Amino acid sequence: MTRIAIDAMGGDHAPFEIVAGAVWAAAEYGVALELVGKQDQIEDCLDRIQQEGFLSDCGKAGRRHRIRVDVKSLDIKITHASEIIEMGEAPGQAIRKKKNSSTVLTVNAVASGSSDALVAAGSTGAAMASSLFGLGRIQGIDRPAIAVTLPTMKKPIVVIDGGANSNCTPQMLRQFAIMGRIFAKNVLDIDNPKTGVVNIGEEAGKGNELAQSAYTLLEEEKERFNFIGNIEGRELFLNHCDIVVCDGFVGNVVLKVTEGTASMLFRMIKNEFKSDFLGMLIGLLAKPFLRRIYQKINYEEFGGMLLLGVKGITVISHGRSRAYAIKNAVRVAKEAVETQVNQKIAESLNA
Amino acid sequence: MTRIAIDAMGGDHAPFEIVAGAVWAAAEYGVALELVGKQDQIEDCLDRIQQEGFLSDCGKAGRRHRIRVDVKSLDIKITHASEIIEMGEAPGQAIRKKKNSSTVLTVNAVASGSSDALVAAGSTGAAMASSLFGLGRIQGIDRPAIAVTLPTMKKPIVVIDGGANSNCTPQMLRQFAIMGRIFAKNVLDIDNPKTGVVNIGEEAGKGNELAQSAYTLLEEEKERFNFIGNIEGRELFLNHCDIVVCDGFVGNVVLKVTEGTASMLFRMIKNEFKSDFLGMLIGLLAKPFLRRIYQKINYEEFGGMLLLGVKGITVISHGRSRAYAIKNAVRVAKEAVETQVNQKIAESLNA
Repeated sequence: MTRIAIDAMGGDHAPFEIVAGAVWAAAEYGVALELVGKQDQIEDCLDRIQQEGFLSDCGKAGRRHRIRVDVKSLDIKITHASEIIEMGEAPGQAIRKKKNSSTVLTVNAVASGSSDALVAAGSTGAAMASSLFGLGRIQGIDRPAIAVTLPTMKKPIVVIDGGANSNCTPQMLRQFAIMGRIFAKNVLDIDNPKTGVVNIGEEAGKGNELAQSAYTLLEEEKERFNFIGNIEGRELFLNHCDIVVCDGFVGNVVLKVTEGTASMLFRMIKNEFKSDFLGMLIGLLAKPFLRRIYQKINYEEFGGMLLLGVKGITVISHGRSRAYAIKNAVRVAKEAVETQVNQKIAESLNA
Repeated sequence: MTRIAIDAMGGDHAPFEIVAGAVWAAAEYGVALELVGKQDQIEDCLDRIQQEGFLSDCGKAGRRHRIRVDVKSLDIKITHASEIIEMGEAPGQAIRKKKNSSTVLTVNAVASGSSDALVAAGSTGAAMASSLFGLGRIQGIDRPAIAVTLPTMKKPIVVIDGGANSNCTPQMLRQFAIMGRIFAKNVLDIDNPKTGVVNIGEEAGKGNELAQSAYTLLEEEKERFNFIGNIEGRELFLNHCDIVVCDGFVGNVVLKVTEGTASMLFRMIKNEFKSDFLGMLIGLLAKPFLRRIYQKINYEEFGGMLLLGVKGITVISHGRSRAYAIKNAVRVAKEAVETQVNQKIAESLNA
């Protein structure tokens, strides 16, 4: 049985929501767990879940409902971690200093073979740094990158890098294209994915030096990458291509602006319906329709972002993740184990 | 009377929609016009508008309706331009080669004092380059920048640079903060605007080298800038601050991803209501509420982006602008003439 290691102490709602999401996933997807963190706190969470269950906002037409899980029937291992890496700490320093942190020990669980993949919802930087040092880089990849699947009208688009590397070289963007391609093929089942470069204009000469040079590199191997050229921010959602490459700064901005815009719009719509009595009535009727859209684009549905380019599976979850998002992150981790995406990246680079 | 010069040949819907928007604005805001472009085409447009009026999707509860303008009652000057700069041309080269292009002659109209401000909807790069060379840089500003006002929950936020400079230095971002501050004070009437740096994390050490150094520069003059630190993509819409600075690549991505996400969501919602008969009925009831939100965030309402840092007023409009957007761009130009924002930037830097 696939075992997923989870940093139970990471994220805004740790440890309870993390543990709840993990056991929910274990029951639903048939995976074993390795929960890493303060043993007594994790045991308390498990006891509470066994006795009372927990509430979730998501999953069942978006209504708040109680989830019941028979924790005792699951295969759960607890690995005690005496330290926690806080959000503000410098990642590199933190993972060297706090060798007994839940973040480092979660990675160790995968490195040692005790678990098959890991899910982390705390500091993205620390999860990445510890994965890089604990699992090692794939040969031929200079820097691991985060693959994010963004919802669009028809099918998701892969944005890589979603935030792992703020400063990038054109050669790194080319490697992101290689990794994104294998991810799109194996995880998203896209046969010959189209690749673009995030830019601020369509023409070849547009944008900053990085985007221009990346364009040139990918254009040189146009067929290999099924390269379609530059993609502007507006076109990301129009399914012109399946993968876009950019540095992690731009990728993270794309990701968060999408999230911010969507969340603002839904709040504006909610407020607008509240403006008078008739509006409230119509809003009530419209709610199920709007909720279906919200669920299509809600980050909690996507669960987590896969770190590509390391020798192992690391899924990085949103810091604000609650149980439902963690459940989906575990699903992403399980699928990554099954599709062996990082292994296929290594094979492709050594072929 | 304030006279606005308009590049009648710029943008996807030139010349008719541009001319229509300009005369609409002239009638509504009481400004004089200088229409720059192919004289015969402009005259044809004016004749057609005088006789038939034109259709607009926007403005009147968003319904398609005919606008009537008595063109003959307006103060309109036509300046013939024999050339047009196309979207794909390299801006610097194009403005040097095509001295009789509508873009260059529109800038000349302001430089010579024949008009007070200009509106351009064609190639952003060409409008910027010709403004820079034709109007000149304000002393103390290395590079002009585009100020974009982005709609949020409560009040708009100024993003600067919105796309003028793809490669920036930290010092340039500091200058953007100075210009954005004067813009927010004088155009948006914000007393002591708060400034942030677009970044991918809250903490000081986060992000790329540019964002980190800009943070340090602004932190050194914390009070002057009312500096609040880093702002993530998600937080742009939460009114934590009034101005954010970033390089033009990131700013343009922010702008276009916001537009793309909003447009995708509205299309998704529309499709969802169409899924069954009941949905269509509810959708019909919900339409006026959704349309009010759409209007709040529609780029056509904002009309145009102001180029800050040049000795004159240039408003750059969306390439896809139709009459309604151009009308609003002329309004932005008129307001900029009245508030003398670029003049105030010059005074503030020389004080």
